[in-house]
Amino acid sequence: MKVAKFGGTSLASAEQIKKVTNIVTADNDRKIIVVSAPGKRSDDDTKVTDLLIGLGETYLNEGKADDALAAVVERYRDIAEGLGLDDDIVKTIKDDLKSRLAYDTSNEGQFMDQLKASGEDNNAKVIARFLQRLGYTAEYVHPEQAGLFVSDTPGNAQVLPEAYDHLYKLRDKDGILVIPGFFGYSKEGRLVTFPRGGSDITGSIVAAGVKADMYENFTDVDSVFAANPKVVDEPCSIKRMTYREMRELSYAGFGVFHDEALIPAFQSNIPVCVKNTNNPEASGTMIINEREYATNPVIGIAADKGFSTIYVRKYLMNREVGFGRKLLEIIEDEEVSYEHMPSGIDDTSVILDDSQLTPEKEDRMIRRIIDELNADDAYIEKGFAMIMLVGEGMHETVGIASRATKAISEQGVNIEMINQGSSEVSLSFGVHESSVDDAIRGLYEEFFSEKKVLQ
Amino acid sequence: MKVAKFGGTSLASAEQIKKVTNIVTADNDRKIIVVSAPGKRSDDDTKVTDLLIGLGETYLNEGKADDALAAVVERYRDIAEGLGLDDDIVKTIKDDLKSRLAYDTSNEGQFMDQLKASGEDNNAKVIARFLQRLGYTAEYVHPEQAGLFVSDTPGNAQVLPEAYDHLYKLRDKDGILVIPGFFGYSKEGRLVTFPRGGSDITGSIVAAGVKADMYENFTDVDSVFAANPKVVDEPCSIKRMTYREMRELSYAGFGVFHDEALIPAFQSNIPVCVKNTNNPEASGTMIINEREYATNPVIGIAADKGFSTIYVRKYLMNREVGFGRKLLEIIEDEEVSYEHMPSGIDDTSVILDDSQLTPEKEDRMIRRIIDELNADDAYIEKGFAMIMLVGEGMHETVGIASRATKAISEQGVNIEMINQGSSEVSLSFGVHESSVDDAIRGLYEEFFSEKKVLQ
Repeated sequence: MKVAKFGGTSLASAEQIKKVTNIVTADNDRKIIVVSAPGKRSDDDTKVTDLLIGLGETYLNEGKADDALAAVVERYRDIAEGLGLDDDIVKTIKDDLKSRLAYDTSNEGQFMDQLKASGEDNNAKVIARFLQRLGYTAEYVHPEQAGLFVSDTPGNAQVLPEAYDHLYKLRDKDGILVIPGFFGYSKEGRLVTFPRGGSDITGSIVAAGVKADMYENFTDVDSVFAANPKVVDEPCSIKRMTYREMRELSYAGFGVFHDEALIPAFQSNIPVCVKNTNNPEASGTMIINEREYATNPVIGIAADKGFSTIYVRKYLMNREVGFGRKLLEIIEDEEVSYEHMPSGIDDTSVILDDSQLTPEKEDRMIRRIIDELNADDAYIEKGFAMIMLVGEGMHETVGIASRATKAISEQGVNIEMINQGSSEVSLSFGVHESSVDDAIRGLYEEFFSEKKVLQ
Repeated sequence: MKVAKFGGTSLASAEQIKKVTNIVTADNDRKIIVVSAPGKRSDDDTKVTDLLIGLGETYLNEGKADDALAAVVERYRDIAEGLGLDDDIVKTIKDDLKSRLAYDTSNEGQFMDQLKASGEDNNAKVIARFLQRLGYTAEYVHPEQAGLFVSDTPGNAQVLPEAYDHLYKLRDKDGILVIPGFFGYSKEGRLVTFPRGGSDITGSIVAAGVKADMYENFTDVDSVFAANPKVVDEPCSIKRMTYREMRELSYAGFGVFHDEALIPAFQSNIPVCVKNTNNPEASGTMIINEREYATNPVIGIAADKGFSTIYVRKYLMNREVGFGRKLLEIIEDEEVSYEHMPSGIDDTSVILDDSQLTPEKEDRMIRRIIDELNADDAYIEKGFAMIMLVGEGMHETVGIASRATKAISEQGVNIEMINQGSSEVSLSFGVHESSVDDAIRGLYEEFFSEKKVLQ
């Protein structure tokens, strides 16, 4: 049995949905499909989730939002007509949206959450109906009825362990099951959405729950690439990579998945296959537990901007047992997590993700480092990017760090930070944001230039 | 005014002491000399400090130690005769040693401390007497009378700030002042020895106290070398280096100084000159505040063995605010300080100096990391060496890390850890102990092979 998840662009229109149902019905193993809300049909289109956000905000501000509601309904009507469905499905969706608008608005976050989740939910209903019309046994599955229970943390749902047992019972159902992605339910029955990468998370949880043989993740690229195609021209395709590699790459800014989306599948050791809805014949990228890495110890290069460094200097710091701990305590008091902490004899740096910082937090941290730790100097520097070179074979291959630093230097880029020594599958570099693309191109040239496909 | 410190090999025999007095009297600025105990006259000789330790241990075990006492007295008699001094100096020394043996033995540490310190103390008396015999105005200076007050921490004396004001008054004295190195006195009048590098510390403190124009440190090499001569054949000489460079190099196992010995001189901005007693014409190595580094951004390579790594893996570690702080707290509870802490997404390593570890401490740390931090895995790996590449110009020179990693890799050495990003003047690597010499030779070849003297 396979669980297949389809993203927003794969479901943006009747035409796209037909591709999806063709894919689903072409393989009897594709028993469960997890769907996103309809995405953009073209670059200047608006995806349904954004229409729903507009609808919710207008309603909150003005107490009514007839035009915005009509715009959402029209998107579904357009799809339903293209699929040859009866008008009653459109009416069902319109009634559903009206009942969601009637939800208690005193908690705006919860109001918006249940409205946004309608994008996936109604799309699942449309697709189930279309499969039925085509003559297949198919069923829309409500996440609460399927037992997809999550923590009651709006916008950041975490799956509860018992959900897996409930989901396993989906195996008993006949035909094709269509499940909306992006949300689950708390034990108290409240709809709660997942963080970034929501539909991928649902797919991954369902695949783990039903103990699928494979989790297929359909998107709009033929495979995962070794580097960002916006930075490197025609980067080579990755045919096979490990969970660890995928996790490190997506953590460091790889766009395909949010770094935690695949965790449930990884933990259940279910192979993940990334495929293209628009070209389902392409073999895609398999994400598995282990791979041979003799020919390509390095599999990918990821990068992310927006890092800051807290630099701290104190004479004889290395003699002061507890200095590093006290420094991390000050950072922790601001609820900021850190990325790396390289250290010298009399100085240490802490690298942080900018998104967690505010001018007030920065001021408080620096003041406390000076006052409480008696540092001789402490300041924050902004504008760093972190580059991560990832590959299962890196740790055992002599010379990777040498080739990587050389490749970066030859681009005229100064390496501000190197972090190697803990992870066996990655090596990370800090550079100034302005030179990160040059550094990536240099690394790509060094490790991938003569390859087309990474086996 | 110059303060000159002479090490044990410079004062091992009458012949050596004559070289020293020639050096001292050749320059009127050399007003204060700080002396070690007589060192080894040849490779298979025993230095006086070790004779004194043997004397103390025999006395503690057997309640008497006539032979051992005679052996020490004989060393001084030999020197005194070679210098043409009267026998009364030998009698003075013998009486001094007897009175030290009569010291309270209930605190063995203090008993041994005051006995060991006699090596420097009596040597200073001999040298002052010899200078007087040569017709110079010279005086033995007792550290307590000079006000060299230190913390009451046996074997780990730290100078008290007021000592500098007392020492400044030494400027008022006439002639050459001879001060024994290695110890000071607590405010309660107890003799307390300095940690490793004791005589260097005394010289540095005295130079700072009297606001000397220069602190000359006489040893048995013409200069400081860019790498360990036992690993690299005829390494090139360093003519000029900065305090920071010296401090980083000596921290990482450079033999010339203990890394903190020169701090008082550094803090008072007094130039330090390392010179050779056996070849005083050689210009030596100047250690100063700043240097030009255009031609040689890297100045030296140091290395030290005996490091361990605590490896900790926990799924989603990067999401857990406070993990690093809690880990360092566990290590701190064992009174262990750490060197570096490289980190990945789900794992982190802490690099520690083996000398601080015991099997019990290791067990407790690992158990607490598993139990209290819920780590998925935690273990200690031994047998690492840290290599430090040091130079003021490194931070501003693109490509240093690249050349360094390449040079190490070309020796077939795998780099286990790289730490760059905090110190502006160093870059450190972790390798297995068995391959550290190969790595050093590779680095030397890359950065120094075509140079003879580093300006």
